[in-house]
Amino acid sequence: MWAGPEAWAAAAAIDDAPAHPLAAVELHLPFAVADYVDFYSSLHHATNAGRIFRPGGEPLPPNWRHLPAGYHGRAGTVVPSGTPVVRPQGQLGAGEFGPTRRLDIELELGFVIGTPSRRGEAVPVERALDHVVGVVLLNDWSARDIQGWETVPLGPFLGKSFATSISHWVVPLDELTRAAREPQAPAPLPYLREEPWAFDVALEAELNGTVVTRTNANQLYWSVAQQIAHLTVNGAWLRTGDLLGSGTISGPERHQRGSLLELSWNGEEPIELDDGSTRTYLEDGDEVVLRGAGLGEVRGRVSGR
Amino acid sequence: MWAGPEAWAAAAAIDDAPAHPLAAVELHLPFAVADYVDFYSSLHHATNAGRIFRPGGEPLPPNWRHLPAGYHGRAGTVVPSGTPVVRPQGQLGAGEFGPTRRLDIELELGFVIGTPSRRGEAVPVERALDHVVGVVLLNDWSARDIQGWETVPLGPFLGKSFATSISHWVVPLDELTRAAREPQAPAPLPYLREEPWAFDVALEAELNGTVVTRTNANQLYWSVAQQIAHLTVNGAWLRTGDLLGSGTISGPERHQRGSLLELSWNGEEPIELDDGSTRTYLEDGDEVVLRGAGLGEVRGRVSGR
Repeated sequence: MWAGPEAWAAAAAIDDAPAHPLAAVELHLPFAVADYVDFYSSLHHATNAGRIFRPGGEPLPPNWRHLPAGYHGRAGTVVPSGTPVVRPQGQLGAGEFGPTRRLDIELELGFVIGTPSRRGEAVPVERALDHVVGVVLLNDWSARDIQGWETVPLGPFLGKSFATSISHWVVPLDELTRAAREPQAPAPLPYLREEPWAFDVALEAELNGTVVTRTNANQLYWSVAQQIAHLTVNGAWLRTGDLLGSGTISGPERHQRGSLLELSWNGEEPIELDDGSTRTYLEDGDEVVLRGAGLGEVRGRVSGR
Repeated sequence: MWAGPEAWAAAAAIDDAPAHPLAAVELHLPFAVADYVDFYSSLHHATNAGRIFRPGGEPLPPNWRHLPAGYHGRAGTVVPSGTPVVRPQGQLGAGEFGPTRRLDIELELGFVIGTPSRRGEAVPVERALDHVVGVVLLNDWSARDIQGWETVPLGPFLGKSFATSISHWVVPLDELTRAAREPQAPAPLPYLREEPWAFDVALEAELNGTVVTRTNANQLYWSVAQQIAHLTVNGAWLRTGDLLGSGTISGPERHQRGSLLELSWNGEEPIELDDGSTRTYLEDGDEVVLRGAGLGEVRGRVSGR
């Protein structure tokens, strides 16, 4: 992972037939997570969240179009696809405690750092991808009521830290196709400036067998190269195993929304599943599968406590 | 570290004369940091920050007296005492970029997790200290202008992630004395409830040879046991090497404030040093030493870029 693009290409060229059938082994995390940073880089997701939580106000925070907003998450609770997700409990409001009533998913890509960067040196945006060994699918499970009560002023904490699921395979970047994007407005500062682009990866989320959203990674306003340039511009360095979540990926249409928060408009507009049942947030026993073209899947079933 | 209190006592009883004089070796981090969580548990610090940033409003966020507020920081940029701190650069506002003009310190304790907790199981407040192998001094260097621009809605990120300095020695908890505290009001929820207490540790911060603050760990409203009970109540687990910052420790008096933000009231009231110079925030070349009774020191000098 740390040896860089040439070593990754050489490793990818090895024809290694598996020694054990997949069904006979337990799959663990594909790498040891160093720091986990979660970004917030989809314009439609950020806009929807703003409309839901600050109705009547300006949907986007003033800094959103100037920097790829992000925060550190809990690396120790990143778990592999298939790990059951126990419904978290916590404070839901002043003096109110119990299991979350608003358990949600977030459909994201996760970029994995291979080559570390030098201490104190900002990574230039045009060389940022040299540090990325590959990509995983990522479900940033979220408890919206816990998150809502705790989040001012220090940001998301226990509403996110109970589990973050990733797929079993790290897919090299050169297996993904790229698409051009429209120019960013306003033009970003020089350290973030590049020709606008995004990965073109079809994505979907399935809930109990019903596909509830179909979106695409080309909906990301900020690229992973810009995220890395921003993350390191203050002198912070990358370590092998750092995991960078893209943020929930939503498109402009309702069926392109990457979270139940948005799909159900915070519970006001239930969605219907193929079995005739409806959902706002997740119920015990629900199973969620995220899929990405060429990336496989990340799966998790909710269990009660 | 992971073996628990009996093993720690046995290790502490070993009489191991050092094989090398201290001056002949380079001291590294005393442990590998897993996740770094920074809390916000001093009532006077939180109140001062609220008065400075939200003048005229309610100083404390609505959740502050109900839970030990915290967020995840960057584990990969925790550095040992003596590491130079390069002035970070970043976005200071919309379209504005440069080296921070408001480089600050935060005087904290850092609690180090030895024994991991079980996945998915909340650690009861009365057993939380069994997981803590010891304590370090911690300087949570902060760039207030970068922090101010980025912090809504996801919390502190690049304003903190460039460096967090800790002392070279992890001091066992039983070497510290404890003090009773007044009851918390309102009474916390059952999972946070315990007889109110705090560690009684005299602390000071020295800037270029002038002691600029003298405070005490007994100013912490939330105990580390409560922080651990909160951190794990949602099912998140502790790993060996997790580092829990107490949050900046400030007392009620001006000379007891644990950050320059508070000491200079965000730059409005410069403090005077023994050499006749004044400071609001840190200048290049400044050296900061935090000291704690029985804990040694954590030291860092600011360098320009």
